[in-house]
Amino acid sequence: MRIFVAQLNPTVGDMEGNTHKMIQALDRARTKQADIVLFPELTLCGYPPEDLLLHQSFIDAQEMYLEKIIRASARLMVFVGVVRRNTSNGEKPIFNSAAVIYDGELLGFEDKRLLPTYDVFDERRYFEPGGSVQIWELKGKRIGVLICEDIWQHAGYVGNTQYARDPVLDLLPLKPDVVLNLSASPYQFQKPDMRVQVCSKCAKTLQCPVILCCQVGANDQLVFDGYSVYVDEEGRLRQIGKGFAEDDMIVDLNAAACPCPFTYDPMKDLYQALVLGVHDYFYKSGFKKGCLGLSGGIDSALVACIAVDALGKENVLAVGMPSRYSSEGSITDSEQLAKNLGIEMWEIPIEKPFETFLELLNPFFEGKAPDVTEENMQARIRGTLLMAISNKCGHIILSTGNKSEMGMGYCTLYGDMCGGLSVISDVTKRQVYALCKWINRDHEVIPLSVIEKVPSAELRPNQKDSDTLPPYEIVDRVLQGYVEEYLSPEEISEKYDVPVEVAFDLVRRVHRAEYKRRQAAPGIRVSKKAFRVGRHYPIVQGWV
Amino acid sequence: MRIFVAQLNPTVGDMEGNTHKMIQALDRARTKQADIVLFPELTLCGYPPEDLLLHQSFIDAQEMYLEKIIRASARLMVFVGVVRRNTSNGEKPIFNSAAVIYDGELLGFEDKRLLPTYDVFDERRYFEPGGSVQIWELKGKRIGVLICEDIWQHAGYVGNTQYARDPVLDLLPLKPDVVLNLSASPYQFQKPDMRVQVCSKCAKTLQCPVILCCQVGANDQLVFDGYSVYVDEEGRLRQIGKGFAEDDMIVDLNAAACPCPFTYDPMKDLYQALVLGVHDYFYKSGFKKGCLGLSGGIDSALVACIAVDALGKENVLAVGMPSRYSSEGSITDSEQLAKNLGIEMWEIPIEKPFETFLELLNPFFEGKAPDVTEENMQARIRGTLLMAISNKCGHIILSTGNKSEMGMGYCTLYGDMCGGLSVISDVTKRQVYALCKWINRDHEVIPLSVIEKVPSAELRPNQKDSDTLPPYEIVDRVLQGYVEEYLSPEEISEKYDVPVEVAFDLVRRVHRAEYKRRQAAPGIRVSKKAFRVGRHYPIVQGWV
Repeated sequence: MRIFVAQLNPTVGDMEGNTHKMIQALDRARTKQADIVLFPELTLCGYPPEDLLLHQSFIDAQEMYLEKIIRASARLMVFVGVVRRNTSNGEKPIFNSAAVIYDGELLGFEDKRLLPTYDVFDERRYFEPGGSVQIWELKGKRIGVLICEDIWQHAGYVGNTQYARDPVLDLLPLKPDVVLNLSASPYQFQKPDMRVQVCSKCAKTLQCPVILCCQVGANDQLVFDGYSVYVDEEGRLRQIGKGFAEDDMIVDLNAAACPCPFTYDPMKDLYQALVLGVHDYFYKSGFKKGCLGLSGGIDSALVACIAVDALGKENVLAVGMPSRYSSEGSITDSEQLAKNLGIEMWEIPIEKPFETFLELLNPFFEGKAPDVTEENMQARIRGTLLMAISNKCGHIILSTGNKSEMGMGYCTLYGDMCGGLSVISDVTKRQVYALCKWINRDHEVIPLSVIEKVPSAELRPNQKDSDTLPPYEIVDRVLQGYVEEYLSPEEISEKYDVPVEVAFDLVRRVHRAEYKRRQAAPGIRVSKKAFRVGRHYPIVQGWV
Repeated sequence: MRIFVAQLNPTVGDMEGNTHKMIQALDRARTKQADIVLFPELTLCGYPPEDLLLHQSFIDAQEMYLEKIIRASARLMVFVGVVRRNTSNGEKPIFNSAAVIYDGELLGFEDKRLLPTYDVFDERRYFEPGGSVQIWELKGKRIGVLICEDIWQHAGYVGNTQYARDPVLDLLPLKPDVVLNLSASPYQFQKPDMRVQVCSKCAKTLQCPVILCCQVGANDQLVFDGYSVYVDEEGRLRQIGKGFAEDDMIVDLNAAACPCPFTYDPMKDLYQALVLGVHDYFYKSGFKKGCLGLSGGIDSALVACIAVDALGKENVLAVGMPSRYSSEGSITDSEQLAKNLGIEMWEIPIEKPFETFLELLNPFFEGKAPDVTEENMQARIRGTLLMAISNKCGHIILSTGNKSEMGMGYCTLYGDMCGGLSVISDVTKRQVYALCKWINRDHEVIPLSVIEKVPSAELRPNQKDSDTLPPYEIVDRVLQGYVEEYLSPEEISEKYDVPVEVAFDLVRRVHRAEYKRRQAAPGIRVSKKAFRVGRHYPIVQGWV
């Protein structure tokens, strides 16, 4: 039996385009003599469709496009992720389902049973949980079908949740010969391993192969890494789909076992996730050109590299906007980087508007000492310039703040936070360094001086990040403890060896900066817990 | 039997302060010879606590503060909204509960059974649903306890949800003598009526009085209007708490029936909701001073009035920032309004920075015609000025865009969208007019010329909103149909008598502006469906 695992990259809501992709995949599957085609979760509308699911017309369209796929399914058994109406009782009016199709006929549906409602997932907002599991048969093989989360409870890898049932165990008495899983499981740093383990655990329990088809591509803030999985009945990895690209993975259940060692480079994966995040944000919304401010610092250097790989060097515009406080090195470093990347660079010094603003406000600010006001003003002048370029020339601005800064609020609202997409806002400062070193692994793309200089916003004379913040090493440990692990400052202090008053101070800063992050450009999520997407905190609160 | 309904205004997460408020209420209740004290839902931590609920230390603190309330409960039966741990099986580790206390002793808990997970609610993200209903007794009276949503299913007023059970019907065989409901039910335009009907329906079914205690006050974007309810066994309204203020409502179940006609002015309520929204955003986060740009238009005029009522005229700073396109009338109108309101006004013309930016960008934009770039630039210069004032003088900037503009994207990101709080972003343009007329009901606060002038952004010569947008009458109908009712353009066209191509165009604009709204300042929610809070749409999508 041959199973065609169609690891596709759908666009949310583009049912016409997604259906076209699926029908093409069915054609390829027939060419490859496949018996079964397995698509990802909610392939038809793309994941996550969010509140589009509340429109009746959106659900109606699902049914219409599903018909097209049914008609295109000759000689194949097809499992396709769709939304279907709940016509019986229950809290919610729709299911997150797999339509089961055979040779031009709809055989029925399998509905997702476990509905993640934590982190970035809010499936209980829309969906009714599915009922009992069942078996589908083809050529004498008994096929069990699970949808994404359905398989995760069994391995214990679910967040803040302990489901009352375990669909893997529900399948046990039905003795399936193979289990298929339709997934849309977002990337996070070092997660691909976890997905293999989850499949492996299921395979061992059911003593049958497990094949999981993952959505690939980015939709808004979520990146889906692909890496579809085939494990055999002993839970050994037998095949794995490409990472960060569409792939046709053909599984032959009768083929002889051969080892499939899965090694991946976490830094390369992280980089690819960011590139895919940028690419799909632009490509799926019909934009081509990106623009960013190049400061000479390490963050904008990294974003420039990502942008070039995502959009092509001809589509990336760098803008240097030196101020009276910019060091000579910053300017030449930026120019060198732009040269190394082969991208166009404009230089627009901000001194004149800065002076104009200072003069204009002078009568109102008389007697008040210079402070963060003048620093932010420089950042906002830069933001205004970048946005003017965006408006006039059609670029999307890429903002360049990292997670450590965003966590601390060490960034200027409407200044360096400007942009359509925040590329590295879920990448810690230490990961920024690691990525830059990875980029330079063969030859110097990012000038060494960019990587080696002391971090500075260059918004006042001789400014250094460390004037205002503890070392990023400390910041990142506290963010890890507080944001990802929900520890108290006392627990962070103990676990991460940080003085307790520093932990308290940084946790307070995290909350104080909530109002800024609320207005941040959407960021590409690559960690276990990003700011904003999947993390909901009050701005006004009396807890911290 | 006397029931003290403590309609309090808690701050999210401020358990120390909220506990203090509650203990004071217990003292007042004893003074008033009350037998029972009823608090709102989740009084201890304030509603909505959001992801603070994921911190163990937050749950631990609940238990500690609950102890203090128990110790302060002498001679009273107390129903207080708290989070409690789920120590048995179930998906989620906590319950949204009412602690039942009597005279220094914790008798037990009632857990919320129906967990709203739609619109602004995401309770399935955190809470396990409660089990069966029970009866608590005092002085021979059988008391049933429901928490907020528990009572709504019975009246059919729940969104996108049909719960499998109805806790009101569950109570029926237990024959309660009175039902108490702990609520945190957010304000929306014309909702108070609905809450009375919901109580009335429950009372009629159970043939017993229903007393509902509502949280009051604003927490971030949600405003809670108070208006606690007491209906008798025939469902007749007998008492109603104050709107938009804390209140001690004392219900004497033995008192003779007297009619309590509930009439309210929807415009006054809407205005009060906005005032409370601004007040609590500032007050609960320790800020006093607000600042806004006064353009001479109707939107900023309305926001100025709201700010004065929320913060006091001495705490409101208006800034006029005329450009080369500002009409003479706009400037004098702004000055007149500031005078009428007794607020300070600064005037900072933006011509100089505008010229500087134009010059600076001229070499890069050569040969390109003036367009929206130059318009947005003026708005962003104003934003930069306002933010400088905020940074230097400690004001929170109030942004002044209305819902119709936000829906259409007729606003400048990082320009007029700047601010800590977006005061009227959930108020349609037509409601803006109605509110201004309501403000002027006795005498002219807002100059008539402000209300009567043709809407214009004044960002290019002789600009009018109607150059770019259909009449607001049409815009608002399409927003109503699409955003609140999820209708398709065809359905909107039919129901609201709008040409179908206009409906399509406006719906497309709603989606195209999603990227802007994603970075908007948080807005005060006053409608059935606000942008952003309780509305989650992808930015990149292929549906519309």
